[in-house]
Amino acid sequence: MTTQQQKPYVIGLDLGGTNSVFGIVDQRGDIKATTAIKTQGYDKVEDYVAASVDALQIIIDQVGGIETIKAMGIGAPNGNYYNGTIEFAPNLAWAHDGIVPLAQLFSDKLGIPVALTNDANAAAIGEMTYGVARGMKNFIMITLGTGVGSGIVVNGQLLYGHDGFAGELGHVIMRRENGRPCGCGRTGCLEAYCSATGVARTAREFLANRQDPSLLRELDPEKITSLDVSIAAGKGDALAKEIYEFTGHMLGEACADFAAFSSPEAFIFFGGMAKAGDLIMDPIKKSYDEHVLKIFKGKAQFLISSLDGASAAVLGASAIGWEI
Amino acid sequence: MTTQQQKPYVIGLDLGGTNSVFGIVDQRGDIKATTAIKTQGYDKVEDYVAASVDALQIIIDQVGGIETIKAMGIGAPNGNYYNGTIEFAPNLAWAHDGIVPLAQLFSDKLGIPVALTNDANAAAIGEMTYGVARGMKNFIMITLGTGVGSGIVVNGQLLYGHDGFAGELGHVIMRRENGRPCGCGRTGCLEAYCSATGVARTAREFLANRQDPSLLRELDPEKITSLDVSIAAGKGDALAKEIYEFTGHMLGEACADFAAFSSPEAFIFFGGMAKAGDLIMDPIKKSYDEHVLKIFKGKAQFLISSLDGASAAVLGASAIGWEI
Repeated sequence: MTTQQQKPYVIGLDLGGTNSVFGIVDQRGDIKATTAIKTQGYDKVEDYVAASVDALQIIIDQVGGIETIKAMGIGAPNGNYYNGTIEFAPNLAWAHDGIVPLAQLFSDKLGIPVALTNDANAAAIGEMTYGVARGMKNFIMITLGTGVGSGIVVNGQLLYGHDGFAGELGHVIMRRENGRPCGCGRTGCLEAYCSATGVARTAREFLANRQDPSLLRELDPEKITSLDVSIAAGKGDALAKEIYEFTGHMLGEACADFAAFSSPEAFIFFGGMAKAGDLIMDPIKKSYDEHVLKIFKGKAQFLISSLDGASAAVLGASAIGWEI
Repeated sequence: MTTQQQKPYVIGLDLGGTNSVFGIVDQRGDIKATTAIKTQGYDKVEDYVAASVDALQIIIDQVGGIETIKAMGIGAPNGNYYNGTIEFAPNLAWAHDGIVPLAQLFSDKLGIPVALTNDANAAAIGEMTYGVARGMKNFIMITLGTGVGSGIVVNGQLLYGHDGFAGELGHVIMRRENGRPCGCGRTGCLEAYCSATGVARTAREFLANRQDPSLLRELDPEKITSLDVSIAAGKGDALAKEIYEFTGHMLGEACADFAAFSSPEAFIFFGGMAKAGDLIMDPIKKSYDEHVLKIFKGKAQFLISSLDGASAAVLGASAIGWEI
């Protein structure tokens, strides 16, 4: 049996609302083996963990057994790093009305240490361990997906705050009057504008309030997605480009406020929307320069995650395993 | 000569635009001796340091000589902790157009380590060392004075960020449209509303736009100060109370956003305006509860600095000396 120091692998679990994807990862971020199960379909968390461990056992054997594995990291919605729990996660049948000690349950079954955090924090640690943030001590990861998430790194450490829930930057208020309703029950949050669903809503508003032609008018407004907007903008559609400018402008304003908080050396964007590249990054940078306090001007980099892709979330989750 | 470990005192320097106040402080926060010089009136920083050391020498001798002193801490406007410099401080004749290595200059003259940070960070460290934040690992200090400053503590450490200038929460944007001009050259900053000068401006606006009687109408509007508003409110003046409600409401909204960032266990208010007590704290707490994300509700304390008073800034500056 190898000693603790020599164990070459960690397990990463990207726990999503639909799928749970597992990977066994080495220190360079190479994924050696993967497997997956459906996240739903279990009434009790114990059943979910049992099914997970059954699936995991096969890939654990592939890499040489549990003795080769240092630890496991989990990225999960509403994950609390301090106590390894998932708390009141609205989209998880077995965790929507309580506090579930998921890390402990996996640790008991596997006999290795298990840590857990929310998906955006996992992405930030993944970027620091394997991606463009290697060597950075102060940066902010912003995940642009169905929602807007964030992971804040300060002095080389994830910022968890007093209760483990720090870094909810999708829920700073960007419109204090007549703000859009947000899923959190309040109005005017960054997420209500700059998530994929926010961008789709912006598209519907632009189409309803304006008369100029657009490729987007060929689509059913209720079914427009941020991907449709991206495709139309890629074809040079002026209205679609303006939607990205509107979105990037607000993200730039938000980042200017974030700079006043933790003065990061970089803002790193992750997730589907970040794939739009310059279309979204150019307006973010322009707006940031216009809005940021003079003392911070020109200091921060704006980067797109180098982990983006199907395996990024698993890598992010696995990276927590090295930190235990 | 005593050893490094046994040296019982640190020097604190509260470097203000008008006066420079020095104190020699023991580990319990008792100020053993103080002196002061004018901050201005020196063309060159070397002259300022020489005058400071002349004044200091007397009180250093009083406590038993330089051998009894571990280090010196300086709280100064535009102070950069990382390199011990004051950078482009608009109100300091000998530092307004350059980078001044003040910590090094004092260290060379005194022969002890010297650290420097901005005034709000010094207040936060002071609170953590001697005040109500003793034992806290995550809190935000908000200084309400001529401006609005902040010191953010995360995992028991001051948040300095990549460049040493993190924690400029007076300059997050609270009004993105038709915001008041701020001293920083932008519009709508928290400081433009919630500093002492912001409160005086709110008073002038309320008096100009409304007809209801108020004790404040007896004063020259151009000369109204936040202290006048506090006195009138203390006498039960309805309009003056509304000015505090307006100010506290905005501070509560701002703190709700700050919670989404670092999820602190407490917000601690420091400075002249905080002396208004419940008059300002009650509307802050009420507004915070109305605006904060559900997950943070009811978790943070709202406290007034226990160091407030004439010696608070010197104590805060001295506290950095223990950290070296």
